[in-house]
Amino acid sequence: MTTPVLDQARLLASLQELGSIGALPGGGVCRLALTDADRLGRDWVVARMRALGMSVTIDAIGNGVGVYHGLEERAPVMAGSHIDTVRTGGLYDGNYGVLAGLEVVAALRDAGLRTKRPIAVAFFTNEEGSRFAPDMMGSLVFQGDLPLEQALATRGIDGATVGDELRRIGYAGAAPVGANSVDSYVELHIEQGPVLDREAIRIGVVEGVQGISWTEFTLRGVSNHAGTTPMQMRNDAGYVAARVATFARELTQQHGGNQIATVGALTLSPNLINVIANQAVFTVDLRNTDGAVLATAEQQLWDFAAATAAAEGVACERRALARFDPVRFDPAIVDRVERIAGERGLSHRRLPSGAGHDAQILARMCPTGMIFVPSVNGLSHNVEEYTKPADLIAGAQVLLQLLIELAERP
Amino acid sequence: MTTPVLDQARLLASLQELGSIGALPGGGVCRLALTDADRLGRDWVVARMRALGMSVTIDAIGNGVGVYHGLEERAPVMAGSHIDTVRTGGLYDGNYGVLAGLEVVAALRDAGLRTKRPIAVAFFTNEEGSRFAPDMMGSLVFQGDLPLEQALATRGIDGATVGDELRRIGYAGAAPVGANSVDSYVELHIEQGPVLDREAIRIGVVEGVQGISWTEFTLRGVSNHAGTTPMQMRNDAGYVAARVATFARELTQQHGGNQIATVGALTLSPNLINVIANQAVFTVDLRNTDGAVLATAEQQLWDFAAATAAAEGVACERRALARFDPVRFDPAIVDRVERIAGERGLSHRRLPSGAGHDAQILARMCPTGMIFVPSVNGLSHNVEEYTKPADLIAGAQVLLQLLIELAERP
Repeated sequence: MTTPVLDQARLLASLQELGSIGALPGGGVCRLALTDADRLGRDWVVARMRALGMSVTIDAIGNGVGVYHGLEERAPVMAGSHIDTVRTGGLYDGNYGVLAGLEVVAALRDAGLRTKRPIAVAFFTNEEGSRFAPDMMGSLVFQGDLPLEQALATRGIDGATVGDELRRIGYAGAAPVGANSVDSYVELHIEQGPVLDREAIRIGVVEGVQGISWTEFTLRGVSNHAGTTPMQMRNDAGYVAARVATFARELTQQHGGNQIATVGALTLSPNLINVIANQAVFTVDLRNTDGAVLATAEQQLWDFAAATAAAEGVACERRALARFDPVRFDPAIVDRVERIAGERGLSHRRLPSGAGHDAQILARMCPTGMIFVPSVNGLSHNVEEYTKPADLIAGAQVLLQLLIELAERP
Repeated sequence: MTTPVLDQARLLASLQELGSIGALPGGGVCRLALTDADRLGRDWVVARMRALGMSVTIDAIGNGVGVYHGLEERAPVMAGSHIDTVRTGGLYDGNYGVLAGLEVVAALRDAGLRTKRPIAVAFFTNEEGSRFAPDMMGSLVFQGDLPLEQALATRGIDGATVGDELRRIGYAGAAPVGANSVDSYVELHIEQGPVLDREAIRIGVVEGVQGISWTEFTLRGVSNHAGTTPMQMRNDAGYVAARVATFARELTQQHGGNQIATVGALTLSPNLINVIANQAVFTVDLRNTDGAVLATAEQQLWDFAAATAAAEGVACERRALARFDPVRFDPAIVDRVERIAGERGLSHRRLPSGAGHDAQILARMCPTGMIFVPSVNGLSHNVEEYTKPADLIAGAQVLLQLLIELAERP
């Protein structure tokens, strides 16, 4: 098959057009899942799918799938992502993967071409999790690990349930969930991190998604006068928190490049200059592409916190806020991404995804891969989120080649 | 001179009686400086002084001094402290020193005795600093290092000025400040720390007051996604804050027992689990009885913070919130306290004061000392503040002996 030509201007225009729905004054977008703004965004995408001659189904959790039929009746090769945003989001996170998928279909259609397998483009409900937990909800129901009833009963930060809101906006679809067969899945996404931008690399060959461990620690000590309490008589919750936070950094040095650790939230009580803190609540975000190392680091962290607290006479409780094992994408798809980028003369490097994506859920049901393009200054979940037009086009061209190759496999 | 007998029951009753003025529901006292409650407390103490036949003067900053005349016209030996409290204070902080001084005078009067030198009892305005900064305001004006006009113009947390409030409550006195001659000054006080209570020691022989250095650090880094930002690309203000906080603890280990350090206040922004902190604001409270070691520790802290921030690519600003050099009390008075406690069979130990007291200001103008009694569990500035009656009496008996010895010197 000859490679069809992508309409670059239309791709860029479609990002602006979808981004105008739920636009924030001064820049950025707010289309929280299942709000009126989300409905308008969905309506826009569904209309575009229909205009491209795709058959569109909406399933019971509101996932939308458009199918551009193939020459053979087989499971589709699927491109996809999400079109909901965080409260102060940008134009690219999620939307780019969906709209680029539609441009690939448009290019095929404009050229009068059909692939052996169908090509599907999906948008999954509530990937962000900003209104309803958990995130990646639509893909989890689609893949089967989250029961539909449980997802529909989920109550959001504003008290509404997923089921009620799906009905309200007209996206409680008729298609059953869990009945899908997918040949393979590809998600094109902005990196949402600084690596490609800082290294001036155009294409990220995503090998997998890091495992995540979020722990919240609550330390309880004794408040006392900072001037009159000798060091050896202290039960200083603030000191233990600071020591555990520095240990988290030490863990990253011990385990090397793929182990990352962040203490982003830390609150002391009573938080006064001259009073020893009687309470510290803080979180540790550990991530690693290697599940065994992540589990080791997690245990080291917990043991260190317990021992340091005990030595200070401080009570230490912890609870898990999130835990995902790492995901490795299909090696054959990863290799294809790498080869295609090279053939097109695009600089590229392998890297893991630091953020979560629907692709990590789809990877449980079919061969899956991801393509990253640079995020300027690594910014995302931010109205300043930006990717250069040339990079948006380069990523879409890699996606186009990849989808055709996968769909044309024997 | 025969030692007169202290009326133990009356001392304890007077603490309860003064503590009933401004009493909080459920326990504790609130007599913030120059409020109506403070006026009522002052009125009670002044009436008690007059009832003891003392001549009372109120100076221009509202300090009250009662003098029990001696056999000779000489500068008085002075006992004193303060009767203002913090917002949720106890019965003992300050009040104890003033009321015990009055009981010493009462004992002399009841026995028909007069010492060679006069014995004065003083209460100093606004020692706590809870409503008007700085603390120890009355003693600073009395001693001369804080100009009267500056003190009177001070605006409090509620917008009122010291001068207006002194006039309003009738304590803008006629006596000039800075005209006082004091032979020697002794302050009896609860420890406000845990040392005596934990070691079951009855009398603290106070050698001096620790020097204090309060530094506020403001660190500015870059917020980024905790999952997608490699460790070596971070500018994590939270990590630098935690590392500096643990270094403060290391300093206390390096410099030994008299160096103390507290990070009581620490605030991260945006304070989210999965976002690297772009700002950390925190305070370090360093104290030492040795001024040279304190200055060394302070410089080490500042240098370490600057170097750690620079290595992380984080901007570091600092400002001094407070700085007092350590004070050493008069060795002859310290020796006397120690000897008297021993003679009375009271267990005792030397220790520094961790908190600030009017005595450290008086020490600039005359030989000065302090006597501590235990605070149960080290609590103070707290409605749970408590000292056992037997300890209150023991401390007052040491004060009585000390005042008589000082007043009877040739």
